[in-house]
Amino acid sequence: MSGSKFQQAPHKLLAIPGPIEVTNEVLDAISQPPMSHVSPGFVKIFKECMDMTRQVLYTTTGMPFIIAGSGTLGWDEVSSNLVEPGEFVLVVNNGYFGDGFSDCLRAYGASVDHIRAPLGDAAPSIDVERALKKRKYKVIVVTHVDTSTGVLSDVKAIASVAKSVSSETLVIVDGVCSVASEEIRMDDWNIDVVLTASQKGLGTPPGLSILVASEQAIKVFESRKTPVTSYYASWQKWLPIMRAYDSGTPAYFATPPVNMIYAYHASLKQITSGLEERFRAHQKASERIKAVAKQLGYRQIPKKPSIAANGMTAIYVPDGFVPKDIIPRLTEHGIVVAGGLHKEAKDKYIRIGHMGTSVVDEGRGDIELIEKALKASVRK
Amino acid sequence: MSGSKFQQAPHKLLAIPGPIEVTNEVLDAISQPPMSHVSPGFVKIFKECMDMTRQVLYTTTGMPFIIAGSGTLGWDEVSSNLVEPGEFVLVVNNGYFGDGFSDCLRAYGASVDHIRAPLGDAAPSIDVERALKKRKYKVIVVTHVDTSTGVLSDVKAIASVAKSVSSETLVIVDGVCSVASEEIRMDDWNIDVVLTASQKGLGTPPGLSILVASEQAIKVFESRKTPVTSYYASWQKWLPIMRAYDSGTPAYFATPPVNMIYAYHASLKQITSGLEERFRAHQKASERIKAVAKQLGYRQIPKKPSIAANGMTAIYVPDGFVPKDIIPRLTEHGIVVAGGLHKEAKDKYIRIGHMGTSVVDEGRGDIELIEKALKASVRK
Repeated sequence: MSGSKFQQAPHKLLAIPGPIEVTNEVLDAISQPPMSHVSPGFVKIFKECMDMTRQVLYTTTGMPFIIAGSGTLGWDEVSSNLVEPGEFVLVVNNGYFGDGFSDCLRAYGASVDHIRAPLGDAAPSIDVERALKKRKYKVIVVTHVDTSTGVLSDVKAIASVAKSVSSETLVIVDGVCSVASEEIRMDDWNIDVVLTASQKGLGTPPGLSILVASEQAIKVFESRKTPVTSYYASWQKWLPIMRAYDSGTPAYFATPPVNMIYAYHASLKQITSGLEERFRAHQKASERIKAVAKQLGYRQIPKKPSIAANGMTAIYVPDGFVPKDIIPRLTEHGIVVAGGLHKEAKDKYIRIGHMGTSVVDEGRGDIELIEKALKASVRK
Repeated sequence: MSGSKFQQAPHKLLAIPGPIEVTNEVLDAISQPPMSHVSPGFVKIFKECMDMTRQVLYTTTGMPFIIAGSGTLGWDEVSSNLVEPGEFVLVVNNGYFGDGFSDCLRAYGASVDHIRAPLGDAAPSIDVERALKKRKYKVIVVTHVDTSTGVLSDVKAIASVAKSVSSETLVIVDGVCSVASEEIRMDDWNIDVVLTASQKGLGTPPGLSILVASEQAIKVFESRKTPVTSYYASWQKWLPIMRAYDSGTPAYFATPPVNMIYAYHASLKQITSGLEERFRAHQKASERIKAVAKQLGYRQIPKKPSIAANGMTAIYVPDGFVPKDIIPRLTEHGIVVAGGLHKEAKDKYIRIGHMGTSVVDEGRGDIELIEKALKASVRK
């Protein structure tokens, strides 16, 4: 499948829920000599990244913000640009990352209410409806896939219910662990912000914060009454820059991470060449890995298959085993996986990532390798 | 000089004041397959980056913060961690970047006073002394080299005078355009924070915010009375992470940009192999370029040689020429330079960067190429 002459150094398979394995084309792109961030060549690449990011999220009118940072920076963007101090935010919280986003919102002065789902569960949209009827929320925040548990939220249903109860409320999706591995149709589903990072489904090394805002979100931002409460994350600074690049003109606020942008561009070209096929490949790989894990006595954290992510698997280790023995065994068999992260079950489960080229390029044999390693992990 | 088998793609010489040309070793390192950010291999590389960053700044006790972002993010770190809302900050302002830092400080609630130097000049330390005697400042901020004008401030003298008048005032140096091209002795000179980015003297592609804080700065941070006013830039989040990596243990707040860290590591290894030699090489190259420019009728923006940076040259184009003709001519002759940035003289001058491998590796012939292109630029 790879047309690049670039050869990756031999290494163990990176099967954590981000960073993930990347293609030869991505590594070839990242190693190009840096060019000027205001040169016509770079402006073209950046503009194409904006357009392809829109494509991945099925939006024609969304405004992408692509900034040096980690996924977390997207939380700052939402908290400091779309919420004014004292305004109410509803967080649909199903784990570690819901807690983190809430912390961030509070740091910038928001009043945060929660709908909490128990470990392994997703909050039902009826709870969202009830909460929105009780109080006026400026924004509602949902983690699409909580990387700590692999729980997938039904963001389509939540956005639909939210907009029908309160059309002015902005729907924010934390898609760090879902963009390009789960379908998200921003325009059709009425989602106002999707924020993510480069190192998961987007198949690029970590180092880019990627966020797309709807026209409604931009309007809400532009009609703020109080000053933006951040600087590096401020859309007052970034919006003119993104608009300039979007119209083919360079502009300067902070130096863009040019090599990371080349890498992202190379990955987006591969991703947008077959988006629906890509989602299906993620589903297929996920089903295979989850089925093998089940046979071996591993137990899913998500309580139902319908709320389990397609880009990762979070599983309790079989009885009689502990992660601190299983993880090194998996490494011996060639795959690097992640330990638990959710505080209630930290030492009882492991997390496996299966996103991007590992699931799309079957010739790599990555899914077979994960299956083999899982089987070896519980052999006596 | 290069021992790497990696070959860069042919390209025009990047001679802007950042991003700069990088070595084959740096591009080889950035194109390694991503590894887990909590693996022992990555922890070792990150820890070595922290130690070598200390070496570059001649500090043994400073705490480095290395985060995905641009240099600007360092402003947010200072403004939201070291200054509490309403506290007074003195900005020694000699251009575009002093204005930017002030904006950032105000966004987080600081009360900002300025000492402004006219275009091409640096504020004398006597003015700093006078200001500090009039009012108690929490921090004083100095841009070491203002990338918009090439003016070099005497941060050693300013820190000395500041600490003698008000020992509790923290001295903050914006070293984005000076670290590794100008000498900075953090411990000896009593500097509390040096903030910078990866893409200038540090010879790495853009995408890393790098900041080192003194023990006094960390103490001031730890004795804050009000909550930190940012999230992604919050040391409450980052300090435990940096301390963990510093002691050889992984920790997680936001995913570090692993490939950027490999690249930074490769560059730091080259930089720390001969730091004083490197500073001399920058001085020598700078003198050569400035002398040639003078012969050709270009005129320095910095009013005296003693306040001209060694890593870049900002020059008014000769009479009868305009930058928008000169810049494409320079490109035709193989070098990419930057236009003006300071609002008072934007369309009258150009900026040339001469940092990192371009000045250290004489075998590349970069300085000769810049000289030749400059000569060709004014030929009738």
